[in-house]
Amino acid sequence: MASERCLAQGCSAPGPVPKGKIRIYSMRFCPFAQRARLVLNAKGVRYDVININLKNKPNWFLEKNPLGTVPVLENDCGQLICESPIVCEYLDELYSEKKLYPTDPFEKAQQKMLLEEFSKVVPFFYKVPTGKSKGENTAAVEQELKEKLEKLNKILVDKKTKFFGGNIVTMIDYFIWPWFERLDGYGVRQCLDGAPQLQQWMQNMLEDPIIKATMFDGKTHKAFLQSYFDGKPDYDLAL
Amino acid sequence: MASERCLAQGCSAPGPVPKGKIRIYSMRFCPFAQRARLVLNAKGVRYDVININLKNKPNWFLEKNPLGTVPVLENDCGQLICESPIVCEYLDELYSEKKLYPTDPFEKAQQKMLLEEFSKVVPFFYKVPTGKSKGENTAAVEQELKEKLEKLNKILVDKKTKFFGGNIVTMIDYFIWPWFERLDGYGVRQCLDGAPQLQQWMQNMLEDPIIKATMFDGKTHKAFLQSYFDGKPDYDLAL
Repeated sequence: MASERCLAQGCSAPGPVPKGKIRIYSMRFCPFAQRARLVLNAKGVRYDVININLKNKPNWFLEKNPLGTVPVLENDCGQLICESPIVCEYLDELYSEKKLYPTDPFEKAQQKMLLEEFSKVVPFFYKVPTGKSKGENTAAVEQELKEKLEKLNKILVDKKTKFFGGNIVTMIDYFIWPWFERLDGYGVRQCLDGAPQLQQWMQNMLEDPIIKATMFDGKTHKAFLQSYFDGKPDYDLAL
Repeated sequence: MASERCLAQGCSAPGPVPKGKIRIYSMRFCPFAQRARLVLNAKGVRYDVININLKNKPNWFLEKNPLGTVPVLENDCGQLICESPIVCEYLDELYSEKKLYPTDPFEKAQQKMLLEEFSKVVPFFYKVPTGKSKGENTAAVEQELKEKLEKLNKILVDKKTKFFGGNIVTMIDYFIWPWFERLDGYGVRQCLDGAPQLQQWMQNMLEDPIIKATMFDGKTHKAFLQSYFDGKPDYDLAL
């Protein structure tokens, strides 16, 4: 779709969000923005997507979010929300018929604590391809990632559930999924060797209709990441 | 009170939390733990406090929170919650009669975004006294803190309200208050010179009965911080 093409410096600003609609400023391969898109899809909300050229951002985008990051959500009152967990929690409260967070306060707090922990794992997914692109030996960082994934695996072992919040997909699964969808892209699938329950979780996630409908395959992620490491991210890849 | 004295390595572990009660593991001068204590007090909840010697932590405390940070909350089911915003949000949901977060999803998201922004200001409060304790010239970091506080000031100017969430004290005010209570302790009160609305906010906060009942004066904070920079934090100061 032509409308998915990213907007760069110089592109004209989109008009106001139409009444009753919601808009997300995104980038097709950004895992943080993907969290918000997964939540929007899981809620069955009709939304507009505006993809941003993150290497060459339009000024009007920087006015909406001075940090320059995606996702940014804009509602039909022109209110703006950024930071992926805040965006997702806002969506969960706004479209509250099908809650993705558990209603039990402790279970919800548990998901937030796991998100905090996972946020410290995220940099390790990038360290491997970054190191390799510089010709470095990445055995040590691969080992570190492996150990961190084994810790995640243990959570599933202890819970004895199919997903991180129980036997159905909940918020925390969508929060962490995007990095697992990119395992082949990052070239780190071998780091899952000691984490059989996490492998099973991935299989279970791949059955989720929301994941199925929105995911890119490993080859596409790999091609995007290659373009990213080459310093020329191909935001419109495969359009 | 003798019971406020901090527990160190070797002190015996407290028993289970009595039915119907809640317990916080804290440190009397920790601004993060103070957030949770402010929320507990604002909710009118009866709670136990166990203060931890953060320089010499009991093993049983590290079992409760491997990160070793306070606050940690423990309920009467033995469930544990850490990270101050997660603890405060949990308390707000558990004791939901008097909500501290706004019920409007956008206003709530706004408070969370402001918390994110403020979290990046926090290190600057420490940079001044840390630099001074090493005999460094801190003019540049003081200027940086000043500019960041002027940005916070602008939010109040734009909102035209007494507090950050409106004309009553809400969650965000308690999230950021602890660092303002310590301005004299950090020796950074002069950084507020260009922020008159923020100064007025501080005056308004000092009228809040919860703040009044729980705060330490500048002299006490200063004495604690001095002991901290001397490498011998006096956790039981003034007990």
